Amino acid sequence: MNQVTVHAPGTVANLVCGFDVLGMCLDKPYDIMDVRLLNAPGIIITSRDGFPLPTDPAQNTAGAPLLAMLEELGQPIGFEVIIDKKIKPGSGIGSSAASAAGAVVAANHLLGNIFTKEDLVRFALFGEKVASGVKHADNIAPCIYGGITLIRSIFPLDIVSIPAPPLHVTAVHPQIEVRTADARQILRKQVLLKDAIRQWGNIAGLVAGFMKNDYDLIGRSLEDVLIEPVRSMLIPGFDEVKTKCKAAGALGGGISGSGPSIFMLSKDAAAATEVEKVMQEVFTRIGIDHHTYVTTINQQGVKII
Amino acid sequence: MNQVTVHAPGTVANLVCGFDVLGMCLDKPYDIMDVRLLNAPGIIITSRDGFPLPTDPAQNTAGAPLLAMLEELGQPIGFEVIIDKKIKPGSGIGSSAASAAGAVVAANHLLGNIFTKEDLVRFALFGEKVASGVKHADNIAPCIYGGITLIRSIFPLDIVSIPAPPLHVTAVHPQIEVRTADARQILRKQVLLKDAIRQWGNIAGLVAGFMKNDYDLIGRSLEDVLIEPVRSMLIPGFDEVKTKCKAAGALGGGISGSGPSIFMLSKDAAAATEVEKVMQEVFTRIGIDHHTYVTTINQQGVKII
Repeated sequence: MNQVTVHAPGTVANLVCGFDVLGMCLDKPYDIMDVRLLNAPGIIITSRDGFPLPTDPAQNTAGAPLLAMLEELGQPIGFEVIIDKKIKPGSGIGSSAASAAGAVVAANHLLGNIFTKEDLVRFALFGEKVASGVKHADNIAPCIYGGITLIRSIFPLDIVSIPAPPLHVTAVHPQIEVRTADARQILRKQVLLKDAIRQWGNIAGLVAGFMKNDYDLIGRSLEDVLIEPVRSMLIPGFDEVKTKCKAAGALGGGISGSGPSIFMLSKDAAAATEVEKVMQEVFTRIGIDHHTYVTTINQQGVKII
Repeated sequence: MNQVTVHAPGTVANLVCGFDVLGMCLDKPYDIMDVRLLNAPGIIITSRDGFPLPTDPAQNTAGAPLLAMLEELGQPIGFEVIIDKKIKPGSGIGSSAASAAGAVVAANHLLGNIFTKEDLVRFALFGEKVASGVKHADNIAPCIYGGITLIRSIFPLDIVSIPAPPLHVTAVHPQIEVRTADARQILRKQVLLKDAIRQWGNIAGLVAGFMKNDYDLIGRSLEDVLIEPVRSMLIPGFDEVKTKCKAAGALGGGISGSGPSIFMLSKDAAAATEVEKVMQEVFTRIGIDHHTYVTTINQQGVKII
């Protein structure tokens, strides 16, 4: 076998109170990637849908991880990657992570699965470095492991899978641009200790809520007193969407990653659909084009087809 | 029945990475308290062991919570409290919380358990306010609920019990004075966001480790990059004790509450005993009087005898 197709899913980083350490894998949307093993060194990147991806592998979020993998492997081989980019870059639902994770999972499959998932995260982080300048794993880890993951530490890498009860996810991508690098830059370097205490009370509550199947606790813990108040200013309609989605039955939610997408968690499918209507109504009224997704948590991560 | 005796146990607040939000109840030491229902208004506080407790109920950590309870009750009754104070004030293992929690649990028992545990925490917080000027529940909650508790929020009160595997606890109380109010004052009001992120990665890891029975993860997560570096300076020998205890087999540990006591968690009883020897050796060598305890987690909290 020298070719494989994978589905590389979108992910929600931060999960409101877990900035830089929590992430969740979605069933949809997902990129479709064909990866082929080459007998000569080199990485070839092609966009199937005509999306203008950087073709220099060192500047491409799928290419940089493969270069890191090849360097560690030390063999004169290469990969061709054809990407059908369904997850739009800049959406805040893990577009760059999907490319990076999809590429390394596919390549590892072609190599006979010689690398561990942790190795694959390590390689894929080079893709995030290309995309945002920072090696953050809160999209990469859930994309490769599936489910909800905690990145307790990046150096050394310490990834913990967090079990959770069934949850429905509604996400809306308003078509405005919020660059990850910009979204990071507006954050203050220092925070009040009392706010940090509230935040770690919430993340502890969220993890406990997931592991106890306690939907109310999950909802109460989905509170972010540090990042959301700053970043939500970049997203028109955010406060209204959040308030109305909770009134429509969502447990809670917030900014997906660095935005502009907004996600909400619901206990049942009916609530998730009501939440979608609310999102559509608000963004239609304020005149911002948008896509919505109603989906669930993807327990598998990148899938070999 | 108009009289009851309770054992009010010591507690370890913070649990290293859970400053102000996590706490753990100990099997020993514990205060012994006799509480008697009086037919006339008033609170009488007596020390059985001659320890100089404040006898003005409003200034006493057992009295203030009972005053709050009586005010809510609105009946012309009172309580007499006789305290055998085994947990020395200023030890950092929840001395004031034991008095407050023991008093309200005993009084509630005499009243036919008309108040919920959450009510009792609310009353007992008045004792912490007397003791340290701050209504913190990270000793009160585990003392009343037993086990390991998360105080996700104080206003409104949100207490979450965190299941954990069997753990052995070794604690040492070096006989030096660190007042809770002083220990709070030396903390900076602002912290670096990157340090706060590391801290909430650790508390999420600790909660997941407890709930997954993952001892290694518990050990890795017992890291405090914010509070310990400052407060440990008030405790001679701290770094040496911590390093040597981990080398002797402890999973990890740190300052108990605001100190000066130090606690360590171990997977088995043999390690907990080795850890005790290390603590004794270090404090004997540097010439500081000390008490040690080898105990386990108390799942019940305040016990009616």
